[in-house]
Amino acid sequence: MGFDFGTMMETVNRLSTSDHTSVVSITVFVTLVCTCIVLGHLLEENRWMNESITALIIGVGTGVLILLVSGGKSSHLFVFSEDLFFIYLLPPIIFNAGFQVKKKQFFRNFMTIMLFGAVGTMISFTIISLGAIAFFQKLGVGLAIGDYLAIGAIFAATDSVCTFQVLNQDETPLLYSLVFGEGVVNDATSVVLFNAVQNFDLSHINTTVALQLIGNFIYLFISSLALGVLTGLLSAYIIKKLYFGRHSTDREVAIMMLMAYLSYMMAELFYLSGILTVFFCGIVMSHYTWYNVTENSRVTTKHTFASLSFVAETFIFLYVGMDALDIEKWRVVSDSPKTSISVSATLLGLILVGRAAFVLPLSFLSNLTKKHQHEKIDFKQQITIWWAGLMRGAVSMALAYNQFTRDGHTQLRGNAILITSTITVVLFSTVVFGLATKPLVRLLMPSSKQLDRMISSEPVTPRSFTVPLLGESQDSDADLFAETEHDPESREYDNILRPSSLRMLLTKPTRTVHYYWRKFDNTFMRPVFGGRGFVPYIPPSPTSPFEQNGHHHWQEEEKRGEDKH
Amino acid sequence: MGFDFGTMMETVNRLSTSDHTSVVSITVFVTLVCTCIVLGHLLEENRWMNESITALIIGVGTGVLILLVSGGKSSHLFVFSEDLFFIYLLPPIIFNAGFQVKKKQFFRNFMTIMLFGAVGTMISFTIISLGAIAFFQKLGVGLAIGDYLAIGAIFAATDSVCTFQVLNQDETPLLYSLVFGEGVVNDATSVVLFNAVQNFDLSHINTTVALQLIGNFIYLFISSLALGVLTGLLSAYIIKKLYFGRHSTDREVAIMMLMAYLSYMMAELFYLSGILTVFFCGIVMSHYTWYNVTENSRVTTKHTFASLSFVAETFIFLYVGMDALDIEKWRVVSDSPKTSISVSATLLGLILVGRAAFVLPLSFLSNLTKKHQHEKIDFKQQITIWWAGLMRGAVSMALAYNQFTRDGHTQLRGNAILITSTITVVLFSTVVFGLATKPLVRLLMPSSKQLDRMISSEPVTPRSFTVPLLGESQDSDADLFAETEHDPESREYDNILRPSSLRMLLTKPTRTVHYYWRKFDNTFMRPVFGGRGFVPYIPPSPTSPFEQNGHHHWQEEEKRGEDKH
Repeated sequence: MGFDFGTMMETVNRLSTSDHTSVVSITVFVTLVCTCIVLGHLLEENRWMNESITALIIGVGTGVLILLVSGGKSSHLFVFSEDLFFIYLLPPIIFNAGFQVKKKQFFRNFMTIMLFGAVGTMISFTIISLGAIAFFQKLGVGLAIGDYLAIGAIFAATDSVCTFQVLNQDETPLLYSLVFGEGVVNDATSVVLFNAVQNFDLSHINTTVALQLIGNFIYLFISSLALGVLTGLLSAYIIKKLYFGRHSTDREVAIMMLMAYLSYMMAELFYLSGILTVFFCGIVMSHYTWYNVTENSRVTTKHTFASLSFVAETFIFLYVGMDALDIEKWRVVSDSPKTSISVSATLLGLILVGRAAFVLPLSFLSNLTKKHQHEKIDFKQQITIWWAGLMRGAVSMALAYNQFTRDGHTQLRGNAILITSTITVVLFSTVVFGLATKPLVRLLMPSSKQLDRMISSEPVTPRSFTVPLLGESQDSDADLFAETEHDPESREYDNILRPSSLRMLLTKPTRTVHYYWRKFDNTFMRPVFGGRGFVPYIPPSPTSPFEQNGHHHWQEEEKRGEDKH
Repeated sequence: MGFDFGTMMETVNRLSTSDHTSVVSITVFVTLVCTCIVLGHLLEENRWMNESITALIIGVGTGVLILLVSGGKSSHLFVFSEDLFFIYLLPPIIFNAGFQVKKKQFFRNFMTIMLFGAVGTMISFTIISLGAIAFFQKLGVGLAIGDYLAIGAIFAATDSVCTFQVLNQDETPLLYSLVFGEGVVNDATSVVLFNAVQNFDLSHINTTVALQLIGNFIYLFISSLALGVLTGLLSAYIIKKLYFGRHSTDREVAIMMLMAYLSYMMAELFYLSGILTVFFCGIVMSHYTWYNVTENSRVTTKHTFASLSFVAETFIFLYVGMDALDIEKWRVVSDSPKTSISVSATLLGLILVGRAAFVLPLSFLSNLTKKHQHEKIDFKQQITIWWAGLMRGAVSMALAYNQFTRDGHTQLRGNAILITSTITVVLFSTVVFGLATKPLVRLLMPSSKQLDRMISSEPVTPRSFTVPLLGESQDSDADLFAETEHDPESREYDNILRPSSLRMLLTKPTRTVHYYWRKFDNTFMRPVFGGRGFVPYIPPSPTSPFEQNGHHHWQEEEKRGEDKH
């Protein structure tokens, strides 16, 4: 019996596990992410540390370990993959930001955010590009003009992922919405810049070219926004019409997750800004879709999106830390450490100057349009905005790898120096600027809001423990209506906002827009797409009895909504 | 100014999007998954269809479309990747099964499940292997002996993913726990079989080899189980000690997800059965960890795990349908369609016979140990168990690809025939056997439970709409305690189970084990690892007032638990 055991053993070997190295990598990586989460929890009370810095440090530490174990061969577990980053890790982070953003705060500052994100990024891009051209040739790093422009585009954009880590939406809502909003909008600017570099001869700028650039930006911005809004509305409509929850909460949760992801991928498909699209999809979903699903689905989606985003962030920082030590990149520049340090220092300087050059003038411009003193961005806030947007993170790193390497490392000296400099800038800005941001915010804005936050971060109170959903629907409600009840400032203007004259629009544009939007929303949008008021709303008053028949209540609410128009 | 625009445009092209084909694939795929979910919802009421068949049909339809669009070049969007399947899609499905399984039902039938999963799979393996050796050579398909044994191993194992689709845990709890439990246990058997084929000369089986095989199985089973249990307990301990929820629900959810995944990856790392490990990790997590987290985290984890599992299942069936039409595979066998059909028919016949050959005798054996008539598996149930375990799905397909191809297709005629036959068997068994299972279950077991189920699947009742958490913690509670209140049968034996004599162990082994397990659990395990009784428990009685101070209640419960010992 001549059994062919040789072939069999071979196939069995393959069968037992497909690729054992990837299993090892994933196991180590998941263990590290768990460690980061536990350590991040233990360091929660620390006033300096934050999760991203913990992850970075653990990443660097593991990198050193792998370097020692592998005998100096490599320091990371995976090769840095843009696909992994842009297709899997970035979308949940940005979607969650849109889903949880305080919408009123965001839209109230919409013009300022656009100013920072579009004009500001252009200014920063110009300064960093010109600065790089001026300094780098003196340092003996010769690059093509395309590389200089790419440096400008890479380092002009604020990393929106880093913003979460240092600014707290509840403590400093204005700063958060400005800096984070800028981070979202400047993604569109970056796409436009790259297209511009591709299609126009930027050495001969004239009015036509400038107008085309502006037109491009407007097209890209509007179509990305429209795609996000449409996907969000489609999800709201499908869920409202089919009422998935009747059969399965899991289907609702699955369809919300998948449609959100779909909006990002469609934007990428049409060469739009996926970040902008998925951000606005998140806003629309939190305004309509979220109210159409069952209570269980609401709790689930809210926390699932946040958890996924949290894991993705930790993953990114851990990876960046681990990748930083990759020996291949440093070997090429090891003969000229001075040049490398100078290039890094120059880049950091240019980032500092480039950001200051637009934050201060644009804040001044923005202040001109505001009447009330409390609406203006004061100098302390301007400093904080400048500082909080200095960090460069995984987005910069991914773009730098894309521009200056193939397969993760390069043999060209100029490119190698730029890669190591990018790593230095990312590590330095995240750790040093990041560490200093929390204390700076505490120093410059000792507001009452911060005190409120400190009280509310106490251990879970009995009430929120037993009736989490009641509390939930209030907390999570970053809705235009809900905030009216929370924000003492806005209650006053709820009363003012009754007349609907043209004079209003001229004197108080934001408020009037808000008023008409609410009217439009209640009359046309909510009856079709659902949303708050078409689902059982339990008033937060502690004296009201617990509504038992939510289903009937829901129908009454719908009727009431129909009576209005 | 000699700007190097050529290089720049090239780099810009690369920057704009990393790999556009993968973006297109993902977009189409996500859209299809959404379509499947919506259609699955619309077909919910249909007594024949289920989600997996919908996904398969849509997959085949899309395959035809892609085939037409690409001019007959390919029918799928991705190349079938075992990594994708075994590393990313399978773990959430099996973990969720462990997390949601009715634990009492599962452990009560533990011996029968082990009998089916271990001995039954061996019987089926022997019959299919011997049958293949006998018939295939007559059909002119010459294979190595290793390939025949591999065929036995591939087709002997029930696909645990398919089981969810046709058997309902609430309608037919006994059948579900038997067939699904068998599917989990036979994964360990498969690993042992492959190792055995690798290390022993199976042509000369003697007592030593048989004992070694049994020893191997016991080692693998116990170590996989221990790894899963330990990871689960570790997660419970970490969350109880650190009390993540005080700071962030997201951290709790993230750590539960990551530790569950970690258990699977560690099992793969140590060449154990990942399926067994992650299944028991799910059981332990639902018994301890789930009770240590906040109410929000409970709702979130329960539905997130279910949704992820649901999406992964849909993904798998969609993919299998799409891949089935891949033209490369069919081209090689197109000259001998008769042989291909004969091979497929032979395989289907062997599966039918192989399964009947162990279900009937082993059920008889299992019945011998049971005293009461209602505990025994009657003939109708045996038929259903036989029928419901006939489906072969993505696991079979992944193993067949692994064994008979490299890079997704093969030029060897024998291998090509086996691949196409596997696809035929998978499609036929899933569609035909799958379609017939629901009606068969209805025909053979018109039990009262099924009627209950039909009533409870009515649109959400008011109570469950407004107080979902109260309802939730009851429903989801696949816990030993909770079911005592639901199951009228078990209430009676709660009263019987007071004396603790040795006679008990001999006459009613399962019940006695259960009694001592509960004692051990309450005295030693729960004080350390948390779990029910160490978190606020709200009694299901409708007359009791809604507990307002859950935090105090929780502490009382803990005290009470401490008083007991």
